[in-house]
Amino acid sequence: MKKVRKLYEGKAKIVYETENQNCLIVEYKDEATAFNGAKKGKITGKGVINNRVTNHLMQILEKENISTHFIKEISEREAVVKNVKIIPLEVIIRNISAGSFSKRYGVKEGIIFDSPTIEFSYKNDNLGDPLINEYHALALNIASQDEIDRIKNMAFKINDILKSYFKRVEVDLVDFKLEFGKTLAGEIILADEISPDTCRFWDSKTHKKLDKDRFRQDLGNVEEAYAEMMSRIIKN
Amino acid sequence: MKKVRKLYEGKAKIVYETENQNCLIVEYKDEATAFNGAKKGKITGKGVINNRVTNHLMQILEKENISTHFIKEISEREAVVKNVKIIPLEVIIRNISAGSFSKRYGVKEGIIFDSPTIEFSYKNDNLGDPLINEYHALALNIASQDEIDRIKNMAFKINDILKSYFKRVEVDLVDFKLEFGKTLAGEIILADEISPDTCRFWDSKTHKKLDKDRFRQDLGNVEEAYAEMMSRIIKN
Repeated sequence: MKKVRKLYEGKAKIVYETENQNCLIVEYKDEATAFNGAKKGKITGKGVINNRVTNHLMQILEKENISTHFIKEISEREAVVKNVKIIPLEVIIRNISAGSFSKRYGVKEGIIFDSPTIEFSYKNDNLGDPLINEYHALALNIASQDEIDRIKNMAFKINDILKSYFKRVEVDLVDFKLEFGKTLAGEIILADEISPDTCRFWDSKTHKKLDKDRFRQDLGNVEEAYAEMMSRIIKN
Repeated sequence: MKKVRKLYEGKAKIVYETENQNCLIVEYKDEATAFNGAKKGKITGKGVINNRVTNHLMQILEKENISTHFIKEISEREAVVKNVKIIPLEVIIRNISAGSFSKRYGVKEGIIFDSPTIEFSYKNDNLGDPLINEYHALALNIASQDEIDRIKNMAFKINDILKSYFKRVEVDLVDFKLEFGKTLAGEIILADEISPDTCRFWDSKTHKKLDKDRFRQDLGNVEEAYAEMMSRIIKN
């Protein structure tokens, strides 16, 4: 599989077309941004970690009958994935209050919810990825009711699988962001990444943050936290 | 029925306790604010119009089996209403794109939706009334699932009734905000007001704005628009 043309360069990844129209190559970068790009920096080694962690977790999900875009890891920073049309909704599942949720509703971090919450943001940098609900997404023809139902079911199932998985390595899965895509055949599958960039991970005992919040909040030991998460995830 | 004590003074209304613990008196003011209080002004005669319009529409809804807080109009600016505990969710129904919706999602005003949308804001001035969804409202114990289901059903039914009603007077009901309250007996009923302050009304033919957007956007003839809406609503 060879890169043919750069399709898109995002904040943390570059996506390339290949000679096969059904396949793309994703390359993970060390660049990090936060607060819709207002904060910029670099987390050395992040690209390697996020590639390996994402690929590992996608394979775990596949074993549990979640369809994902993952095909094959081809280098320490690159993976071959299925070519999908990304549905422009960021899907956020929360098990514990933190981050923008705590700020928006004026509540402390660490409230454990009785049931997980789901929310959508409309993926649009110019608009600042605003919150959007199912009714709005339908009204704006962003997705169909069937697609939204499918995405919600998959997101909650992914949460159940990952929550259990991380519990075994003594990590609380606080919240995370997913993106879904539609294959050329019209199937909705999990796309994008699952990594310390897109999840909040807290050590179950010490509540130490092991994710991108260390970068956002200048907590130090950012690289160490990413490496710690990789070693917990991949040896298990 | 006599005012005993001022319970609460808001941007557009004052609420008084009465000698009967089941009843409150609402007094409508001419003061107007917009953009979460950033813009302030006065619309002469607005209090009288909003009192009469709200009371009229509440009675129409009651005839269609919607329970409301309305009891009796006692002066041109005052009504007796049932004492309810307001559920801190602003409920917004939209039939046509406008206002914050258009701004938030970068779309023009005037898109007619196939189906109405519903959204909730968490009533909290300090937080700027942020958008909130059902999952968040449950997680924060703002309302129960039963209460949310009841509010949604009532809101969509109110939309059907009011849309038909306004169609007859050649007004498009673009969007509106509702608030609900819980009676001492635990029943969820419609509270607050339904007026040119809380609805967007467009003339069906000319698309002229006949609501608070004339104040928000400095379109002029604000008092005339309010008076025009009252005369269309109340003579019919």
